Amino acid sequence: MTKIACCQFAPHIGQVRANVEESIKQVHWAVDKGARIVVLPELTSSGYAFTDATEASKAAEAPDGYAVSSWKRAAEELNVIIVAGFCEASHHSKPYNSAALLAPGLDPVIYRKAHLWDAERALFTPGDAGPPVIETEYGSIGVVICYDLEFPEWIRIAALAGADVICAPVNWPTVPRPAGERPGEVVRTQAQASINRVAIAACDRAGVERGIHWTSASVIVDANGWPRAMADPDAGQSERIIADIDLNESRDKKVSEFSDVFADRRTDLYAALERSATRPAQHEGTEQTQC
Amino acid sequence: MTKIACCQFAPHIGQVRANVEESIKQVHWAVDKGARIVVLPELTSSGYAFTDATEASKAAEAPDGYAVSSWKRAAEELNVIIVAGFCEASHHSKPYNSAALLAPGLDPVIYRKAHLWDAERALFTPGDAGPPVIETEYGSIGVVICYDLEFPEWIRIAALAGADVICAPVNWPTVPRPAGERPGEVVRTQAQASINRVAIAACDRAGVERGIHWTSASVIVDANGWPRAMADPDAGQSERIIADIDLNESRDKKVSEFSDVFADRRTDLYAALERSATRPAQHEGTEQTQC
Repeated sequence: MTKIACCQFAPHIGQVRANVEESIKQVHWAVDKGARIVVLPELTSSGYAFTDATEASKAAEAPDGYAVSSWKRAAEELNVIIVAGFCEASHHSKPYNSAALLAPGLDPVIYRKAHLWDAERALFTPGDAGPPVIETEYGSIGVVICYDLEFPEWIRIAALAGADVICAPVNWPTVPRPAGERPGEVVRTQAQASINRVAIAACDRAGVERGIHWTSASVIVDANGWPRAMADPDAGQSERIIADIDLNESRDKKVSEFSDVFADRRTDLYAALERSATRPAQHEGTEQTQC
Repeated sequence: MTKIACCQFAPHIGQVRANVEESIKQVHWAVDKGARIVVLPELTSSGYAFTDATEASKAAEAPDGYAVSSWKRAAEELNVIIVAGFCEASHHSKPYNSAALLAPGLDPVIYRKAHLWDAERALFTPGDAGPPVIETEYGSIGVVICYDLEFPEWIRIAALAGADVICAPVNWPTVPRPAGERPGEVVRTQAQASINRVAIAACDRAGVERGIHWTSASVIVDANGWPRAMADPDAGQSERIIADIDLNESRDKKVSEFSDVFADRRTDLYAALERSATRPAQHEGTEQTQC
């Protein structure tokens, strides 16, 4: 069993030093509870709701800046793995929406969000590399960021590359949901986990930021897709969740005596069918068996 | 709004005439309630739990056999669309696990299950064609069968081909779930729907068959991923569910002002990254940004 924590809190826009200091306090709490992997929100160092790319750039840092260096030091001192979002300076006109994975003894690994959500495309440069999957003493850890989780292609790539757990810093804006329903983002996280038999730890943020209400629904899901710890989205507050996850479960892709979620994929069919599916509508269905 | 029904009942192994007659009664019930699209279980005509391919072959019929002909006649007489599973005779040693879509004025459309579950591979020949997507007066209807739903690649193909609703005859064997959790199959159906913004109607079967307990969790999910009607899996009985679904929602892939679940896909990256993800483990991660 590996203890994994998500520390959901409310970073303040542009206040990099204060946000990082708060995040380190959160990591200390998690380590005191026995966590070996700690996930922090998307854009932990900078806050999210930038007005424009200029404001985002002011809060951006290189991977050797204050945020990643501080997390790296904490990871070494506390012997813990940290995955945290930060605003990364770039050579483009817009910074990256990035996450750093800090593991004792390893160089920082930086991932740049590839699927930019909504108005983020006016603020950030999208990443062009896949989700990293890094071997650590607890297992292989994948990293994605928020909207990436909505694309099964992306989670499949991380799982096929051997991820035992995918750590996802997220900032989930609140969208309406029927009474009694879990947030859709949680449902999709559960599904992506069980479809691939990979654990997923998604750390959301709390509170309201420049009018954006955050879902505050951090969740840690096992390889069977069951939530093992979940923040209360109706509370909408800072909340730390922690769960024991058996990462060995992620290495067994069998779901019955003869079924295996990877081996049963019809990779002989997918690419050609997807190409023909995206042809103009008038050509659809003509190759189906009709009798 | 289009009224869609799933008629969950318990076909008896090998009793094709009796099963089809019962299924036609179910269709009448649904039409009386106003349904325009009726989904029936996987292998409605034959039952599921065959001992071997020989027994399955005895219950197999060509698409012009009793089952599909009866459903076709009912579809015409009642002016309703029917999607139902049947055991289809093949020229191979094993039959197909198929589904027929019967729409007034159209030839029957036959789909053969491409992802065979567990011991099904000893009983059936897998299909090699994609999910059909057929234009009807209510919208475009896709067809998949049971375990197909567990593969996001397959649902993506149907959605990209323009499906407004995916009709899925299923037979979900019961697997353990934590208290208070929906069956994982329902969770994944919700996720596949919202990831693609496509409605999904999955018709499960009821009861216990040769020792297999069926989940009995038929569900009709809208394009936002919310269940609009759901059978009670704890009851485990025959149950008919019906829901009004706005199929126009499936034609709008936007989920925010600037985000669109199709347009936001990184099709420039997926294929190459999936290829590199499936390389031997020792090559993983070497191209990641490290600093």
